[in-house]
Amino acid sequence: MKQNHLAFADWLTARAQHIEQKLDELLPPADAVPARLHEAMRYAVLGGGKRVRAALVYAAGQACPVSGHAMAVEASLDRAAAAVELIHAYSLVHDDLPCMDDDTLRRGQPTLHVRYDEATAMLAGDALQPLAFQFLADMPIAPALVVQATQALARAAGSRGMAGGQAIDLASVGRALTREELQQMHGMKTGAMLAVSVALGGIVAGASSVARRALDDYAQAIGLAFQVVDDILDVTADTARLGKTAGKDAAGNKPTYVSLLGLEEARRFASSLRDTALQALAPLGEGRARLAELADFIVLRDR
Amino acid sequence: MKQNHLAFADWLTARAQHIEQKLDELLPPADAVPARLHEAMRYAVLGGGKRVRAALVYAAGQACPVSGHAMAVEASLDRAAAAVELIHAYSLVHDDLPCMDDDTLRRGQPTLHVRYDEATAMLAGDALQPLAFQFLADMPIAPALVVQATQALARAAGSRGMAGGQAIDLASVGRALTREELQQMHGMKTGAMLAVSVALGGIVAGASSVARRALDDYAQAIGLAFQVVDDILDVTADTARLGKTAGKDAAGNKPTYVSLLGLEEARRFASSLRDTALQALAPLGEGRARLAELADFIVLRDR
Repeated sequence: MKQNHLAFADWLTARAQHIEQKLDELLPPADAVPARLHEAMRYAVLGGGKRVRAALVYAAGQACPVSGHAMAVEASLDRAAAAVELIHAYSLVHDDLPCMDDDTLRRGQPTLHVRYDEATAMLAGDALQPLAFQFLADMPIAPALVVQATQALARAAGSRGMAGGQAIDLASVGRALTREELQQMHGMKTGAMLAVSVALGGIVAGASSVARRALDDYAQAIGLAFQVVDDILDVTADTARLGKTAGKDAAGNKPTYVSLLGLEEARRFASSLRDTALQALAPLGEGRARLAELADFIVLRDR
Repeated sequence: MKQNHLAFADWLTARAQHIEQKLDELLPPADAVPARLHEAMRYAVLGGGKRVRAALVYAAGQACPVSGHAMAVEASLDRAAAAVELIHAYSLVHDDLPCMDDDTLRRGQPTLHVRYDEATAMLAGDALQPLAFQFLADMPIAPALVVQATQALARAAGSRGMAGGQAIDLASVGRALTREELQQMHGMKTGAMLAVSVALGGIVAGASSVARRALDDYAQAIGLAFQVVDDILDVTADTARLGKTAGKDAAGNKPTYVSLLGLEEARRFASSLRDTALQALAPLGEGRARLAELADFIVLRDR
């Protein structure tokens, strides 16, 4: 855990470059059979995104005093960060398919099924999931911690996490949700993977149960804040800046925090969630600085 | 490991009923939120199939002298068997989608996307994958063995296993493959999951490295035999008996062992693979009987 001297923006950029390089190394090479599938997997994962989930893994790892061999922990944080980025990437590929959101633009580039074809997009997503679990299984830390990490990621990605949130989201189009329903849906769809990113950092670092609880509380708050801010940006930002189609939720008649609370109240809600997240970090000591900065980053970002 | 007195057909039926009940218990209940997704996942997994993969897990576990607590091993074999059945079920759901094989009939029932819708079919498949890894992570055996099991399943399901084989299969439609290419494709598409079923039984039972190698050799042979027989049945069986559309490979101009070798030579090849499988079992002692019977079952089945 170097780079403590860097300003937050520089640290975040350095971490994004670092995980990009690790993903490039860890993904199957584009010329390995089946080459087209491996190319598609690399297209889905490499080349950008804010890498917020990876940054959360690293920041959470850094917030806990490392128990165990420091180099093994660092290598394991890389694999855990790569795993959450893979799950995130696969979910975007499948979400973009015609039978789901039918989107053609992602990070300013053609979506995978536009660039390749639908079958390849489905298979690339399907193949990224087990690779994520393989990355966790390859972490050079105590097997009992690997098992805990696997349980956490499996829960976060599954029917009671991300995939379940997606299903509720689909069923909710054109329906008025209550604030509780909206919160549950986003807690599963977006929050679960953000939360598990934080949890994995703690697990890999061998965090105490007190530290793990603090990380969980922090993660709940920023997970929700992330979605509230996403909803705000869908209304206030333009397509060029977002790198994806702006105004899509409103046009699709999807329930959002802005449609439910109004713009100003949604902004106040995001701000209060940031306060909750920062308070949750109190038990963690000095190493928590990057997590606090990430909370600010999530709430104050403009894309 | 009871039931050693049963005739093979009765043992297989009993094992199929047993895993069906375990899957019913282990899958999220149909009324748990998100209910429609959980219903779809249950529709994909429950209600049949030959459960060959589960049977291979149990038979391989039985072929190795158990090291460790027998009840924990039995409970872990259930979870490992459930995990491979989940991966198999998800792959069928995604294969049946319009952008892949576009099939409407599976085990004599409407395919998932016909019964529900395409988005639900995709999400149900997506949610079954992490649940499979969760089942492994929940096995009450030494964490180091859980990690090995996770690595094996992740490899078998991924781009160098089942998903990769699917990608090669898609790319091969209307092309003439060599025998080597066909073998590689099927080794990945079908063989990898059959092989990992056998491997998981050995891992859970704490098998020696000699036993594991014997299991691997057996698994390679029956994995290939399974596909050769599938190709033969596609030509010789009718749709009602198969429970899926017969003659589909030939109609789709897909390369098969029958199109490559002719029917008689394909039958001889399957028979020689059965001999190879039986020879591979030699180091395993008495407990190998069910594996030998499964090899016969795979080669001699008529659907």
